[in-house]
Amino acid sequence: MIKVVVLGSGNVAQHLISVYKAASGIELVQAFARNTSALEHLLPEDNITSTYTGLAEADVYIIAVTDNAVAGVSGALPFRDRLVVHTSGSMPMGVLCGTNRRGVFYPLQTFSKTKQVDFTTVPFCIESENDEDYKLLYRLASAVSGSVYRIDSLQRRALHVAAVFVSNFTNHLYKIGMDICLENNIPFDILKPLILETADKIKLLAPGEAQTGPALRNDTLTLEKHMDFLKEENLKKIYTLLTQSIQLYGGKL
Amino acid sequence: MIKVVVLGSGNVAQHLISVYKAASGIELVQAFARNTSALEHLLPEDNITSTYTGLAEADVYIIAVTDNAVAGVSGALPFRDRLVVHTSGSMPMGVLCGTNRRGVFYPLQTFSKTKQVDFTTVPFCIESENDEDYKLLYRLASAVSGSVYRIDSLQRRALHVAAVFVSNFTNHLYKIGMDICLENNIPFDILKPLILETADKIKLLAPGEAQTGPALRNDTLTLEKHMDFLKEENLKKIYTLLTQSIQLYGGKL
Repeated sequence: MIKVVVLGSGNVAQHLISVYKAASGIELVQAFARNTSALEHLLPEDNITSTYTGLAEADVYIIAVTDNAVAGVSGALPFRDRLVVHTSGSMPMGVLCGTNRRGVFYPLQTFSKTKQVDFTTVPFCIESENDEDYKLLYRLASAVSGSVYRIDSLQRRALHVAAVFVSNFTNHLYKIGMDICLENNIPFDILKPLILETADKIKLLAPGEAQTGPALRNDTLTLEKHMDFLKEENLKKIYTLLTQSIQLYGGKL
Repeated sequence: MIKVVVLGSGNVAQHLISVYKAASGIELVQAFARNTSALEHLLPEDNITSTYTGLAEADVYIIAVTDNAVAGVSGALPFRDRLVVHTSGSMPMGVLCGTNRRGVFYPLQTFSKTKQVDFTTVPFCIESENDEDYKLLYRLASAVSGSVYRIDSLQRRALHVAAVFVSNFTNHLYKIGMDICLENNIPFDILKPLILETADKIKLLAPGEAQTGPALRNDTLTLEKHMDFLKEENLKKIYTLLTQSIQLYGGKL
């Protein structure tokens, strides 16, 4: 049985609490939050603490707080010899200052409070200072996911940048598509199958192989019509830049 | 029984031939291609013609050729009184010059030769000059899809631009993500669940609600780290522009 404490009350913390309180081989002994009421829908009151001195004994302490708070929380822990990990994609392992046993436990997924996530497919990127702790984190991740990777801090930074492109920026392109629909009295539903199929394609085809559209086939007439249609400067700039990028790099493997 | 002829041998034509030769209530009487061998894996030789004079009688002629060839193919048809439609997202209905009964039959999906498409969820955007022909096209689309919309030429142009943003541009962001992974010895597989979940979210959440990431929360430290990581001018520009766009418009509904 691996005993776990989760520190934090945001999206990632709440998803980890939900999945670990039901995972076999894992005992979620406690959660820590400055405001305990944020977690009361997930855990009994007795299992939540708001003070560092009230922290229970555990094998792993998972700090799932906002990036800028990771160092502060780790420095406030009242022990030095237990395994402490953070869940951030963009912070190096070394930011953990309150412990001699550091690690990273980064679930590479986008979490929203209102949407369930299937953890069995969430890739966990783990890192630690020694092999014993790596094995412990590997078991912890494997208890809920079939996809566990050893990723060092430099690779994790690259992954985090890549994740911004394929998730945050992609979602913003969906937003632009929705705005264009609404301005033209078209239901956004009409674009959803296209969005889902575009994502689904990457299971079978590399994005370089899957690329289609007027930019790649250098269909100047359509590109001009589209630029003419777009009135807003911001959208014109995005259209131009991504079209150029596809023409330079889009179809290459 | 609606009799159909498909003209063309590209991705869209081949997918339409595949789905209509198996659809109930529809008789795919013939396909037309300059190079008949491109369709021989789909239809018996007798059902393929390469000459306009060899065209069979049908209720609807679907011109599924590259945008710039639509006008030429329609002008070459040896009749004026039959319903002729094109499948293009970006061409107006009026581009069809060889007929007195025009229509548009635009399946809003991304088609690749090597990937099967589930037509039951493909939105068909249809337009016609008269109500009788609209009803015919509606029956034709409904024979394979549960999602049929009446969309005029102006709306279709807006939709086509929106589709470029949510599909072509999105796929290019996947390509950038893959390139970053490969340069850092990270398997691209690790990003796939994130890509799929980001798309899946739009079923439940509007993109404005689903937006996450350092741009939206104005996490300056992470944004600087990412800009520092990106060495290529093209990627720096895309990162900067999409970050600004999210900060200006991203979280709004």
